Amino acid sequence: MIPIICIVGSANVGKTTVLEQLIPALKRRGYRVGALKHDVHGFEMDHQGKDTWKHKRAGADTIAIAGPTQVASIRSTAAEMPIEETVARYFWSERIVLAEGYKRSHFPKIEVFRAELAAEPLCTEPGDNLIAMVSDDPPPVEVPCYGFQQIDELAALLEERYLKERKQHPVEVRLDGKKLPLKGFVQDIIQGALRGMLSSLRGWKEPNRITVEIQCDGDPDR
Amino acid sequence: MIPIICIVGSANVGKTTVLEQLIPALKRRGYRVGALKHDVHGFEMDHQGKDTWKHKRAGADTIAIAGPTQVASIRSTAAEMPIEETVARYFWSERIVLAEGYKRSHFPKIEVFRAELAAEPLCTEPGDNLIAMVSDDPPPVEVPCYGFQQIDELAALLEERYLKERKQHPVEVRLDGKKLPLKGFVQDIIQGALRGMLSSLRGWKEPNRITVEIQCDGDPDR
Repeated sequence: MIPIICIVGSANVGKTTVLEQLIPALKRRGYRVGALKHDVHGFEMDHQGKDTWKHKRAGADTIAIAGPTQVASIRSTAAEMPIEETVARYFWSERIVLAEGYKRSHFPKIEVFRAELAAEPLCTEPGDNLIAMVSDDPPPVEVPCYGFQQIDELAALLEERYLKERKQHPVEVRLDGKKLPLKGFVQDIIQGALRGMLSSLRGWKEPNRITVEIQCDGDPDR
Repeated sequence: MIPIICIVGSANVGKTTVLEQLIPALKRRGYRVGALKHDVHGFEMDHQGKDTWKHKRAGADTIAIAGPTQVASIRSTAAEMPIEETVARYFWSERIVLAEGYKRSHFPKIEVFRAELAAEPLCTEPGDNLIAMVSDDPPPVEVPCYGFQQIDELAALLEERYLKERKQHPVEVRLDGKKLPLKGFVQDIIQGALRGMLSSLRGWKEPNRITVEIQCDGDPDR
């Protein structure tokens, strides 16, 4: 799975402001960037009265709209979709995903901190997996700290740690959306076997990506 | 791939109105329903000023938002995503997709027609794959016609033809999003080989769906 970095911090501390600088800083370095917002209250994405809005109101489980330069979708879910599944489903060609929120996840975190808003940071335990802080008045922490004007340097840290020396994991298997851990040699076996089976078929053309979906017995909606 | 039915017709003929009745009619029959809008001009889905809107404006290639009961995403694309890929990517657990537009596709079509708006229907050629018409004043056509008050009967036709006797095609392989045609015995071989390789691994648990993604050499964004 691609690197997921969570931007966390108290309400109104400036998480979105940091993302608005971090996204273009990573884009300038040549990476495709995804942004994922964690919403805890419920959101309204579409505009009232649009056809897609009417489709959803009529009860469609998933709506999508495809245009010349964009595709958008809204899916109803019985419960919150786990961050891993959301990233696997929606960010299939990005190199990194910056998530706003998800402070309870185990993914690496950047905390945005302002001393006037909170006595101490949110991430104080080793399990919080804090990798950097953005603050103009940082508390004593053992991770690199960047001022609000130093977001480009933060992008350099992310590039160095997650993008430059990224190991290739070319084969990913998901069971009901959950990743199955695969050792490198198992990935090679699967890739070799599938290519062997597929490349002799009519219609085969050397692709950039091969996707196989197997619907087993049972309800696809689980 | 799941059935895709296109609702076509002139501008303002009432395509969305038909969908607003057809979606709940299929839902009442117990199916998960997807709705896909074909947009030819460019659309604005998000609300100005929202965090997700700011992420996109900052240059994120894909944004998503995950909440307690919904997930939404907007992806920038270099060109229009083909209908097959859009359906495969976004409607993974729906049983049928109703598309508004896509009149040039080869998928089965329902034409909405009003004599006061057009002299003759859009779908007049066999290649148009017209399967039904919705009209209160239908021209002579060789497909079943339903009035605007008979959408439940249209849903019954779709159920009969596409949902009840749906053949199982359990294995789907896509090369760069494009479906590779697979005969039934090839599907069996692929499923057997993959299950054989995967089921001995630690972490295996009998799933409803197995997804394998292989990133070959080359640019994932093509």
